[in-house]
Amino acid sequence: MGAVPFFVFLATFLIISVHGSGQHIPSLIRQPVDRSDPSSDISCLSWRLGVETNNIRDWITVPKKCEGDVELYMTGSQYLKDSKAVTDEAFTYAESLELAGDGKDIWVFDIDETSLSNLPFYALYGLGAEVINVTAYLEWQLKGELPALPESIKLYKRLMSLGIKVVFLTGRFGFLRNSTESNLKKAGYHTWEKLILRDSSSLNETQIEFKSGKRRELEETGYRIVGNIGDQWSDLLGVHPGNRTFKLPIPMYYIP
Amino acid sequence: MGAVPFFVFLATFLIISVHGSGQHIPSLIRQPVDRSDPSSDISCLSWRLGVETNNIRDWITVPKKCEGDVELYMTGSQYLKDSKAVTDEAFTYAESLELAGDGKDIWVFDIDETSLSNLPFYALYGLGAEVINVTAYLEWQLKGELPALPESIKLYKRLMSLGIKVVFLTGRFGFLRNSTESNLKKAGYHTWEKLILRDSSSLNETQIEFKSGKRRELEETGYRIVGNIGDQWSDLLGVHPGNRTFKLPIPMYYIP
Repeated sequence: MGAVPFFVFLATFLIISVHGSGQHIPSLIRQPVDRSDPSSDISCLSWRLGVETNNIRDWITVPKKCEGDVELYMTGSQYLKDSKAVTDEAFTYAESLELAGDGKDIWVFDIDETSLSNLPFYALYGLGAEVINVTAYLEWQLKGELPALPESIKLYKRLMSLGIKVVFLTGRFGFLRNSTESNLKKAGYHTWEKLILRDSSSLNETQIEFKSGKRRELEETGYRIVGNIGDQWSDLLGVHPGNRTFKLPIPMYYIP
Repeated sequence: MGAVPFFVFLATFLIISVHGSGQHIPSLIRQPVDRSDPSSDISCLSWRLGVETNNIRDWITVPKKCEGDVELYMTGSQYLKDSKAVTDEAFTYAESLELAGDGKDIWVFDIDETSLSNLPFYALYGLGAEVINVTAYLEWQLKGELPALPESIKLYKRLMSLGIKVVFLTGRFGFLRNSTESNLKKAGYHTWEKLILRDSSSLNETQIEFKSGKRRELEETGYRIVGNIGDQWSDLLGVHPGNRTFKLPIPMYYIP
């Protein structure tokens, strides 16, 4: 792959940086990407579409020429409109379901950029233009003050009103459990069936492997995943994806 | 599903319409969709993004309010720019591969709206605004005069120059084989490893089942599918998708 030396370097850096927790953060590791070609002549609308459709993968930062476009997108109305189109479609689908009513119908929600927004943090790094400082990122998440994504919390409430239970499944590490719980409640997500974070046994798994494994465990214990929503394709691909998946927009970062 | 009576009606209609061939065209069958909500207040940019990311499914025609947007998109420069972003990414990926050089590395190309364009035909029906006339569609395809998609034929040539062989895999029916072959050649696709059309044994399969099965057969006979490109998600989902898939834009119609 050619990315191994970079991985080793970054993993080492992370182990040193996050020494307080004794854990490292593979979900934040990005592979380097050649920014000279073909992004130099790409339309920024096309770049965003390429990212959202999973055609463009393994990028670290937004291409130089598209930084302004992404900033406009994330801070203007289109990001919210695009999110609303996804959650409206998700609710229309959910309404059409015939639920068993036995409490085993669940909907899987990712957390970052799905349930909660890191936009205020990424604004410090040009909204995807620069590589973030991982230590600062963890400090920000430990504070537990992330706002809810407006359309996602509406969907959460509407799904609950249908009798669907919510499971939060996140690549965040276990030491963030307390701050994640209090953050979710503060943001308006008051209850859930389960909150699953990455534990020590899944440190070396990719996001797809980790989330697939946890979804398999959910189904093996009798739950039916009627829906699954996330901003990264790695939230939605793999095995046991759920009866239907919904992809929220995210042009700021990529998690393989 | 609620779509069964519609399916039966349309299947009957198709069997009658295409009596000359004795075949019917399940890949053209669309399920009805409620166009009143939530499309009535959806942003047309969001609708297109929702379609391209497979969040919005099972639609028959473009929502009324987005007809102008789709027409502008398909006939302006953005459709070509978006296609180029996909094919450039595909070629960058292909170049990075270490090929075995034994003639077993193949790339799967869908045909309609991937290799060849039906845009001139769909223009007669408002570019997705109206349901097409299936008989007229088959007559158009039998003529074999569809133009190539400019970026796709460039990709085809560039992949061939790397030593990757091309397999065309299409939901078109067997009776279109001769016209498809001559059309591909006329449009500049002069050679291929295989051209696979839908045969009588796959009449009742969905597009995903049909294409998955044919890709499995390819891999079972020793081919390695290094890439797979199509405009519909049903070209790319299912099993044996290929080492990497590429999704071209298509806001004019949906094939489940």
